[in-house]
Amino acid sequence: MEKTITLSVVLTFVVVFNNILYVSCVKYEPNWESLDSRPLPSWYDEAKIGIFITWGVFSVPSFGTEWFWWTWKEAKNPATVDFMKKNYRPDFTYPDFASQFSAEFFNANEWAEILKSSGAKYVVLVSKHCEGFPLWPSNYSWNWNSMDVGPKRDIVGELAKAVRSKTDIHFGMYHSLLEWFNPLYIQDRENGFKTQDFVRTKTMPELYEMVNRYQPDIIWSDGDWTTTDVYWNATNFLAWLYNESPVKDKVCVNDRWGSNIRCKHGGFLNCNDKYNPGVLNKKKWENCMEMDRYSWGYRRNARLADYFSMHELLSEVAETVSTGGNILINIGPTKDGMIIPIYQERLKQLGEWLGVNGEAIYGSKPWSHQNDTITKYIWYTSQIAGSDVTVYAILLFWPADNTVILGAPLSSSSTIVSMLGYDGNFDWKPNPGGGIEVTIPPITINKLPCNDAWVLKLENLQN
Amino acid sequence: MEKTITLSVVLTFVVVFNNILYVSCVKYEPNWESLDSRPLPSWYDEAKIGIFITWGVFSVPSFGTEWFWWTWKEAKNPATVDFMKKNYRPDFTYPDFASQFSAEFFNANEWAEILKSSGAKYVVLVSKHCEGFPLWPSNYSWNWNSMDVGPKRDIVGELAKAVRSKTDIHFGMYHSLLEWFNPLYIQDRENGFKTQDFVRTKTMPELYEMVNRYQPDIIWSDGDWTTTDVYWNATNFLAWLYNESPVKDKVCVNDRWGSNIRCKHGGFLNCNDKYNPGVLNKKKWENCMEMDRYSWGYRRNARLADYFSMHELLSEVAETVSTGGNILINIGPTKDGMIIPIYQERLKQLGEWLGVNGEAIYGSKPWSHQNDTITKYIWYTSQIAGSDVTVYAILLFWPADNTVILGAPLSSSSTIVSMLGYDGNFDWKPNPGGGIEVTIPPITINKLPCNDAWVLKLENLQN
Amino acid sequence: MEKTITLSVVLTFVVVFNNILYVSCVKYEPNWESLDSRPLPSWYDEAKIGIFITWGVFSVPSFGTEWFWWTWKEAKNPATVDFMKKNYRPDFTYPDFASQFSAEFFNANEWAEILKSSGAKYVVLVSKHCEGFPLWPSNYSWNWNSMDVGPKRDIVGELAKAVRSKTDIHFGMYHSLLEWFNPLYIQDRENGFKTQDFVRTKTMPELYEMVNRYQPDIIWSDGDWTTTDVYWNATNFLAWLYNESPVKDKVCVNDRWGSNIRCKHGGFLNCNDKYNPGVLNKKKWENCMEMDRYSWGYRRNARLADYFSMHELLSEVAETVSTGGNILINIGPTKDGMIIPIYQERLKQLGEWLGVNGEAIYGSKPWSHQNDTITKYIWYTSQIAGSDVTVYAILLFWPADNTVILGAPLSSSSTIVSMLGYDGNFDWKPNPGGGIEVTIPPITINKLPCNDAWVLKLENLQN
Amino acid sequence: MEKTITLSVVLTFVVVFNNILYVSCVKYEPNWESLDSRPLPSWYDEAKIGIFITWGVFSVPSFGTEWFWWTWKEAKNPATVDFMKKNYRPDFTYPDFASQFSAEFFNANEWAEILKSSGAKYVVLVSKHCEGFPLWPSNYSWNWNSMDVGPKRDIVGELAKAVRSKTDIHFGMYHSLLEWFNPLYIQDRENGFKTQDFVRTKTMPELYEMVNRYQPDIIWSDGDWTTTDVYWNATNFLAWLYNESPVKDKVCVNDRWGSNIRCKHGGFLNCNDKYNPGVLNKKKWENCMEMDRYSWGYRRNARLADYFSMHELLSEVAETVSTGGNILINIGPTKDGMIIPIYQERLKQLGEWLGVNGEAIYGSKPWSHQNDTITKYIWYTSQIAGSDVTVYAILLFWPADNTVILGAPLSSSSTIVSMLGYDGNFDWKPNPGGGIEVTIPPITINKLPCNDAWVLKLENLQN
Repeated sequence: MEKTITLSVVLTFVVVFNNILYVSCVKYEPNWESLDSRPLPSWYDEAKIGIFITWGVFSVPSFGTEWFWWTWKEAKNPATVDFMKKNYRPDFTYPDFASQFSAEFFNANEWAEILKSSGAKYVVLVSKHCEGFPLWPSNYSWNWNSMDVGPKRDIVGELAKAVRSKTDIHFGMYHSLLEWFNPLYIQDRENGFKTQDFVRTKTMPELYEMVNRYQPDIIWSDGDWTTTDVYWNATNFLAWLYNESPVKDKVCVNDRWGSNIRCKHGGFLNCNDKYNPGVLNKKKWENCMEMDRYSWGYRRNARLADYFSMHELLSEVAETVSTGGNILINIGPTKDGMIIPIYQERLKQLGEWLGVNGEAIYGSKPWSHQNDTITKYIWYTSQIAGSDVTVYAILLFWPADNTVILGAPLSSSSTIVSMLGYDGNFDWKPNPGGGIEVTIPPITINKLPCNDAWVLKLENLQN
Repeated sequence: MEKTITLSVVLTFVVVFNNILYVSCVKYEPNWESLDSRPLPSWYDEAKIGIFITWGVFSVPSFGTEWFWWTWKEAKNPATVDFMKKNYRPDFTYPDFASQFSAEFFNANEWAEILKSSGAKYVVLVSKHCEGFPLWPSNYSWNWNSMDVGPKRDIVGELAKAVRSKTDIHFGMYHSLLEWFNPLYIQDRENGFKTQDFVRTKTMPELYEMVNRYQPDIIWSDGDWTTTDVYWNATNFLAWLYNESPVKDKVCVNDRWGSNIRCKHGGFLNCNDKYNPGVLNKKKWENCMEMDRYSWGYRRNARLADYFSMHELLSEVAETVSTGGNILINIGPTKDGMIIPIYQERLKQLGEWLGVNGEAIYGSKPWSHQNDTITKYIWYTSQIAGSDVTVYAILLFWPADNTVILGAPLSSSSTIVSMLGYDGNFDWKPNPGGGIEVTIPPITINKLPCNDAWVLKLENLQN
Repeated sequence: MEKTITLSVVLTFVVVFNNILYVSCVKYEPNWESLDSRPLPSWYDEAKIGIFITWGVFSVPSFGTEWFWWTWKEAKNPATVDFMKKNYRPDFTYPDFASQFSAEFFNANEWAEILKSSGAKYVVLVSKHCEGFPLWPSNYSWNWNSMDVGPKRDIVGELAKAVRSKTDIHFGMYHSLLEWFNPLYIQDRENGFKTQDFVRTKTMPELYEMVNRYQPDIIWSDGDWTTTDVYWNATNFLAWLYNESPVKDKVCVNDRWGSNIRCKHGGFLNCNDKYNPGVLNKKKWENCMEMDRYSWGYRRNARLADYFSMHELLSEVAETVSTGGNILINIGPTKDGMIIPIYQERLKQLGEWLGVNGEAIYGSKPWSHQNDTITKYIWYTSQIAGSDVTVYAILLFWPADNTVILGAPLSSSSTIVSMLGYDGNFDWKPNPGGGIEVTIPPITINKLPCNDAWVLKLENLQN
Repeated sequence: MEKTITLSVVLTFVVVFNNILYVSCVKYEPNWESLDSRPLPSWYDEAKIGIFITWGVFSVPSFGTEWFWWTWKEAKNPATVDFMKKNYRPDFTYPDFASQFSAEFFNANEWAEILKSSGAKYVVLVSKHCEGFPLWPSNYSWNWNSMDVGPKRDIVGELAKAVRSKTDIHFGMYHSLLEWFNPLYIQDRENGFKTQDFVRTKTMPELYEMVNRYQPDIIWSDGDWTTTDVYWNATNFLAWLYNESPVKDKVCVNDRWGSNIRCKHGGFLNCNDKYNPGVLNKKKWENCMEMDRYSWGYRRNARLADYFSMHELLSEVAETVSTGGNILINIGPTKDGMIIPIYQERLKQLGEWLGVNGEAIYGSKPWSHQNDTITKYIWYTSQIAGSDVTVYAILLFWPADNTVILGAPLSSSSTIVSMLGYDGNFDWKPNPGGGIEVTIPPITINKLPCNDAWVLKLENLQN
């Protein structure tokens, strides 16, 4: 009975904000048991590789992290406080940064090309971070969005259009439920989250607006951690999203819908940032990671060593996909709208690697073993076609004497071993301690399919 | 029955936004008949002279008028468009001005002293103009108020405190119901004002916040003209204001609560700007006028001739008070928080004039005649003490041969004529064509009580 | 012989900088005895009233005085240091102000009209203050002049043209010899002024450029005080100016050409600012005074009381002209190019006063007495036509009982006394203690020629 | 005799600007025959690899190239004009950019570390580009240098100190003789370069200041092309530099000292940018090249493909050194003082390559052959120790079948062939068509000394 009441409130709400009466035969109910029963649309698991784009007003100071505002005003981090003291007038406020968010070089088509070059199959744009600045002309954030100040453009709209027209990449939107310094949020929090003025007049209308206007394939929720899903009105929103919304069939959501929800309920699990369990997980999960190891937003003063090397990146990809995760690799554009060359280079090299080795990644399934039991730095994936299973061993190193032992139970007499991107099959023999020993020919650099993370393909595993 | 329903909505509303249940014995009902029955608190009529202060983000471009934003973006006034084209980068937006609203010289105590020097008895601060920028840290206008950007100060709070502690001037707040470019307002308007998202989430909470936090003596409403009081929820707000609010006993409001209301209902009538009917009015009214004849907000490029001269100002005061009005004289501070010297000078001279002639103004009542029937440029006021009536004739010129005919029926044989600020009584005799002829001595400039608008005082009118 | 050598250096110099060989029959030699022998062009003494315009980069902070830079960085005045600390980022430099020197409302024709309305007969523009920023596109101050940054206009050129085409006002240029922070100047100073790199590559070419390009009627020199005329190369410049320059016949200069020169040599004496000896002076002098008593440059936070009242201003005019001086009244425009209304008002009222009383000022000569020997606050001037002398007594007050004693020996039996701007002659009689007693009729305000500083005219002083 | 006169002018000049009399026994005379007779200090040829750092006010717009100002105002390049129109207010001037040249992250020690990591042996800082903005507090460019506006730091001084204390890298300074928009330069040019005001008051004192204050190892002259060395006073300056200056023993200069001089006289030849003759050159030369192929200054909107790949860079190094040149590789820091990661990465990889292969580069001499006569993409260098010559063949590709023919006459029976960074000698046999055929073992990637531009070392060439 309580459910019914809550639902009626939702419907009332929808009426109030859109002046439209939604009447529907409800399929999913606004509770987690029901919501969790919805199968995750299959495109998501098949995609494996996504790119996260973290952009916002924080890209203007571009110092420390995208948590700049909070770090400065709440944590009073000495480096941030000092940076402001040295470079700005005393009464400069964070909103003052917004007018310098120039985006003059932002070209959605170019971004789409760069995304495409990476081999990623989805993109998640930070559409509104905890700073509360929507990258679209939201009705619910007057004079604090990318159309009213700064870029003066509908960033979300432009990117969605470019991605959809230039690529087959799925378009997702990150959305922070909380806004650190929104006075209505603060008021609700001070009321022990017993009032919901913020949720009612800001979060909810904004989410509906996002979905209705941009029809994203992913709602990547965040900023949920201070309180439960009850305050956030999460189940009601998701019930609408799954039952009624224009994206009900394709949309995927993550798990960050309340301090009591994350890592338990929702579409796929993000748990914490850089979540990488290292072992197989029953529920679909995603490893979101920054390519700059210290920040999601662009840092003007980042050094080369701060960025993941290609080896580190490919290691992360191999480990994540092997253990059933998707990987969401973050880049942070500059305030003027550029993806700097080091990011372009990493993405392009990732795309080249996937061009050779994508067969081991896209649409793959975790195999019975994730990493090798004998030899370190080898990760497995598989492709299943009917009863045929092809296994892929991703080698994160070149074997010392061109021989490598795969300890996992891979062999039958008919097993064929080859390397993706290289012609010809490799010799192998059973390994005394179990598994097989593969002999790789001494391939010189001019004939190597790639310069790192070589993939051995194992076919005909069954007699 | 309809009334009851509406009221319950109001109570619900209050509960929602403040999480407090107001239960009260309702005295005034939310309809105009009931609301109009409330007597206007007497202090207002006695005060006569008020100062209007028009300040906001428009004080940054400080060009054209305080309607700069609208003029630029809606009317596309060529001068404004050209000004922006010449002086700003192409994608500069109005909100970008806010960070330059520096207010570094704003000193509320100094303003209070200047107000005091003018002899005014109330002040009305433009607390939020149609641009929607509150001069206080409103919970309902995040990042678009004087605390979050620009001044970084609670302008309303500082001025209220200074005025109350330094002077006996009443503190009033101007508030615009509409906001030209608020997307929620625009959405409601496009819905034919059948939705009220804007009123519910912005206007109303803001008004309650204003009243509860600053307890103003006047709510000077504006921005009502696009639709009726029904959309604005005006009667419900006023019923709360009169019945429940912390200012219920002293507060005065004007008449701008809907296109169908102004000049008809409410506390005192403003009708249109510079309303000055020239004749006596049954209902209390107010003449709000700019001292810069072309703008309420400060214009950096205003010329001397654009400002009212003292003669024009005193003429306006005389005419307004004589016909039963209050006068609300506007000044526009600079973006850095100064009241420029020409305004200071006018106010100081007004104060000096009132220092001599205040007896004819403060607490006065319109007399049977407003202006003289024979001699132009003479306006009457009166003071009533029991059955005694003293009449004041304000002369807006110095009589050519030091004699002046007062055509109004003023005389009895015992009538005494004198001049405020000058010792001694004047000779007079009946005028053949009616009234009396007063002989003024040839007072040289060193003995004149003031340099303009001399006041003749007539006592003992009855035998 | 030393003279000859010095002169040849000058000629060499001219050749070097302009690639033109000046050969002339030298009339004035580059020494003070010779230079002082040149008669001051008569227009200057006849003009009496000049307006000083102090404008520059200091008009941007517009705080403290036009010595802002020096006050901030050299004197480290706490108020200035604090102002910078509160309102600017730590490494903001004075040159950074230049790009905000917008001058968007600067209209030379409007300035010319305002100057004309004041009755002044010459104007002196601060063309380059000690900050070293020329208000014209100087070849010798690249990227630090009004064309390269800030106004992007030739201020000097525009104003010279407007003044010459719209009025009969003489156009003069203020020029500071020193520049507080010019490294070449500092280097010369540190060399005990024994090197002249600064003078040779900056001051001199700049002065020649000024004269040749704008042909000013006055070179109003300043910034001389740190060393002698020898360093400044003053006599050589003046010899060229008097002998060769395109303005040799009309130009006037002041006395600020070295710490040992001021108040002794040169064209007219300025001595120190606000120089007003109070008694007659053999050599022509000038009283330069600020209308804002605390600053020559515009101060955004100036208060009404900081400005001279009309009474104070007229007193200064009367005293200065009576004792043989010219008065140079200073105004400071805003950074956006406006002369604010209070200045416009004072100038307009001065012009109105001069419209009535100019006869006592323009072309007048000091009389045998400067101020009255019996009655305070009366100052005399005279006009001489052949053997006829007309004397003017400027009364800075209205006589208590409409009678005034003029103690100076003014009478003969045929003496006629009247008031400028008022019809009719006044009665007078010899005063027992000497002089005469004049009876002024009780003129009422509507018939007064002006509201302050009334002028009695005395004719037929001789039998 | 003419020479003597010219020289005396120089001496006079020195006296004038520094107030010091330089008397010396002249060794080099101010004519090219004499100046060219000075041997180039040996360190320069041995160094081979230099880094060029192009930084200035142009790094603020950071759009197009470092010629931004000229492109905008002189060439009126549509893209530049359009960029300004879209992003800046109409009267924004180039000097206005200077205050945004923030350099807040500039850390000379970090730059020194990055330079060191590259293996370069000298650095040339663009100390003053044609924009005329010195990166040091020059006495001759007041308010237009890095101390007075923008960085507010002595960039040259900080970098010189860091480079000298942290590395063994030689410190050089780029200096542009001309300044596009300096009015004195323009005036001289309009005088057909017959006047020398600009050279006398700007260029020369500035060059003396640079040398005396920072004692650079290189004066890398530029901006000479509009006229001859006579105008620039080049020979006199160089005679002083070689005879008298504090760097007379170590300093190297290039050839850009006049339109008639470049590629003919001076220290080493730069001729035009990216000069790379491809064949051996009698006189020492240098190939200066941008790593961003479209600009020397940093471009915010540069794309990955705009940067030289490592393969392209190593090819350029090999070709240049083989043909007797030094290579000066350019990077452009950001306006905030960072060397972006892509540059760091290229420099680090270059340093790693030189770590393995430096023996073929540093101190090497061109060999009898520069590139191979049979096999393309092979470049030779040599080291000479007494009568022993070691030859290095730089292979810009990996040989198809692990065999490579070196057509140059390299063999004797005792010749030993090996690869730098790899243990063991390689088999070879005479090639029927001349030269030798070397067999390279199939080295797998884990054992490769580098990933590109492998160097074969050939010893014992003589029997």
